[in-house]
Amino acid sequence: MTESGKPLKVAVLGCGSVGSQVVRLLQEQATDLAARVGSPVELVGVAVRRLDAAREVEVPEGLLTTDAEGLVSRGDIDVVVEVIGGIEPARSLILSALEHGASVVSANKALLAEDGPTLFEAAEKAGRDLYYEAAVAGAIPILRPLRESLAGDKVTRVLGIVNGTTNFILDKMDTSGAGFADALEEAQALGYAEADPTADVEGFDAAAKAAILASLAFHTRVTDADVYREGIAEVSATDVASAREMNCVVKLLAICELREQPDGEEAVSVRVHPAMIPRSHPLASVREAYNAVFVESEAAGQLMFYGPGAGGSPTASAVLGDLVTVARNRRNDVRGPGESSYADRAVLPMGEARTRYHVAIDVDDRAGVLATVATAFAEHGVSIRTVRQEGRDDDAQLVVVSHEATDAQLSATVAHLQGMDSVREVSSVMRVEGGAE
Amino acid sequence: MTESGKPLKVAVLGCGSVGSQVVRLLQEQATDLAARVGSPVELVGVAVRRLDAAREVEVPEGLLTTDAEGLVSRGDIDVVVEVIGGIEPARSLILSALEHGASVVSANKALLAEDGPTLFEAAEKAGRDLYYEAAVAGAIPILRPLRESLAGDKVTRVLGIVNGTTNFILDKMDTSGAGFADALEEAQALGYAEADPTADVEGFDAAAKAAILASLAFHTRVTDADVYREGIAEVSATDVASAREMNCVVKLLAICELREQPDGEEAVSVRVHPAMIPRSHPLASVREAYNAVFVESEAAGQLMFYGPGAGGSPTASAVLGDLVTVARNRRNDVRGPGESSYADRAVLPMGEARTRYHVAIDVDDRAGVLATVATAFAEHGVSIRTVRQEGRDDDAQLVVVSHEATDAQLSATVAHLQGMDSVREVSSVMRVEGGAE
Repeated sequence: MTESGKPLKVAVLGCGSVGSQVVRLLQEQATDLAARVGSPVELVGVAVRRLDAAREVEVPEGLLTTDAEGLVSRGDIDVVVEVIGGIEPARSLILSALEHGASVVSANKALLAEDGPTLFEAAEKAGRDLYYEAAVAGAIPILRPLRESLAGDKVTRVLGIVNGTTNFILDKMDTSGAGFADALEEAQALGYAEADPTADVEGFDAAAKAAILASLAFHTRVTDADVYREGIAEVSATDVASAREMNCVVKLLAICELREQPDGEEAVSVRVHPAMIPRSHPLASVREAYNAVFVESEAAGQLMFYGPGAGGSPTASAVLGDLVTVARNRRNDVRGPGESSYADRAVLPMGEARTRYHVAIDVDDRAGVLATVATAFAEHGVSIRTVRQEGRDDDAQLVVVSHEATDAQLSATVAHLQGMDSVREVSSVMRVEGGAE
Repeated sequence: MTESGKPLKVAVLGCGSVGSQVVRLLQEQATDLAARVGSPVELVGVAVRRLDAAREVEVPEGLLTTDAEGLVSRGDIDVVVEVIGGIEPARSLILSALEHGASVVSANKALLAEDGPTLFEAAEKAGRDLYYEAAVAGAIPILRPLRESLAGDKVTRVLGIVNGTTNFILDKMDTSGAGFADALEEAQALGYAEADPTADVEGFDAAAKAAILASLAFHTRVTDADVYREGIAEVSATDVASAREMNCVVKLLAICELREQPDGEEAVSVRVHPAMIPRSHPLASVREAYNAVFVESEAAGQLMFYGPGAGGSPTASAVLGDLVTVARNRRNDVRGPGESSYADRAVLPMGEARTRYHVAIDVDDRAGVLATVATAFAEHGVSIRTVRQEGRDDDAQLVVVSHEATDAQLSATVAHLQGMDSVREVSSVMRVEGGAE
């Protein structure tokens, strides 16, 4: 970079935990940012809901405004940073910003997962950038590597621990033997879970991120409505103990897979659910509230990206990284890579997702039960890999681990088992991921 | 990408294990590459030393040539991929390619570490891109994240396991208790180490990568001549066992640190040496020949990037990722970010590097020896964190772990100890990294 140009004007929408760190870094790192962009980066406005709210950062005199729409439509803004979150008014503001000639950096996973294509098309039409690294896995650079570093490779699977709250809870259950409720309470006490933990615990947050990851990995539009979702509220201390016996650990995974279909076409499977993974898998050692994304591709093999998945300052790091790229692009009057959805693959229904299963069944302890249960699995095309029987007084527990089967086959098997006289209860069904078949 | 342009012409220099995989992927992924670049990517020539050599890939009729210089200076090449390695003729060919209007993708760590600035200046002058993701840690996207994703953050430390051969050997020593010579022999038998393992075992390969990482992380020119280097040939089974007792593991680390100096300026410390790291550190679980780079930055916190560090196909994935970006840039007549060396920080001599130390000392087993040894540490300003004494017949061993001190202070302490009557031998000195002070 040999010359310096006129300042690039940046507006920030939202000044909460992420926004305030963005504002702080824009001020503290001004000299470095100017050197890296090639032009000074000037903060010209910060839109907030209330002018008099308490903030973690001091916003320079005169920059605060409650008129977000007025700010993004000024016409002289080069880059708008959207860190409000939620669908509206974020969507309208981003669309308005693009229409008025600004490029956009957003951390808004919910909006991108629900309505990304509307935003991408607006960016394309405006000839502006829309970057959103911070929307998935906080500070971890994962979207840019998927979109750019792996652009010459073929990604076949992404397994992500992309929600810190649920990873903290499951890790606590694994290390202390606590049940879900106690672990959640501890997470709330430590600030890792919100008072209403639904979005995290029920997997909504992870599902939005799965949609974003799958779209990028497979060059196909995937929205959160396409993502099968199961949370961790049903994971019991017994499930965690069973995983331990199998030398596995339970993690809430965002899973994006490319699957060859009988007709030779490749389709996409995207789902979020708790699963057992072997302790030897790199994802198994992701502790506490950390995030990690494990990527498998044809040429590169197995890659993992690890780091803090949330928090104001880490998320702001991702936002600022995008901001430098987008600002450089504005300065040079170019665009980075836009949406890539050329492959336009079909998204499979959950019934066609294929994986392995760990099924615990309480049965009468009498001769022939194992044979009956095995027959039920066989009837639905689910091949058994291992079975372990444990006697307990007058009943027994069978623990079956299957080979790969479809979700529909497994569901039919479970329904069949539940209707059998000798089966008292199918006490646990959990998917097994991350190992060789 | 809505339109399609004229084909982009690509020349590949070298058709060994990486080059042949690049050629293969260019052919197999042609449709995807065209969609991602926005124009077809056409392989127009492959330069090799001998036309009749055995190759892992079939090169299309008429593309092979022994005239590499003629190929890069044709004048119609859009992108030259250099996977020959070594200093010459690679440097001359890259410079010629840039002069003749091509952008360049290179995997050449040795050349970039020795003479990067010459290449960067030539790329700047020509207005072309020079990308080199594959030069460090094979398939792992680490240079792009450092250069782009973390561009809004301040990187303070990079710890890398960037040489698969030495990691395989040290991992084997840790898991089997083998000595260095046996572990090396096994690595050679399995193809993880070359017949002449000097470049890997003595840390030359890692030092080149350290120079490249430090340059990017700290926006400062660092060449391999600036990198302090120690290999693993002196690491003994006893060292590995001592590490195990401390709940540590020995790894060959490439360490790049930003250090505030007494005058308030920040300087860069870059070194490669074996070190003990706690088993709880994310790098400790990097097994076999895998690589990983651990990055600490002010806003993002701790990140790790993990994957295969070598191999034809993984390295080709990184080359192709760069190729897609560079080809897009050619198509759009723009450049990506060039060299960033604006910070121009001083590189510290090894004597000023600060870390902790594990020192094993064989001493006479008599009263007062511990006090004498402790005094020697204190005289040179090295503060002791823990000391453990083990009696053995008529002599004893002291194991000292220090607080942070400079390398010069530690060296002076060791020289002092070696001159003491009661000290029979300083049997092991190893640095301790990756933990809180």
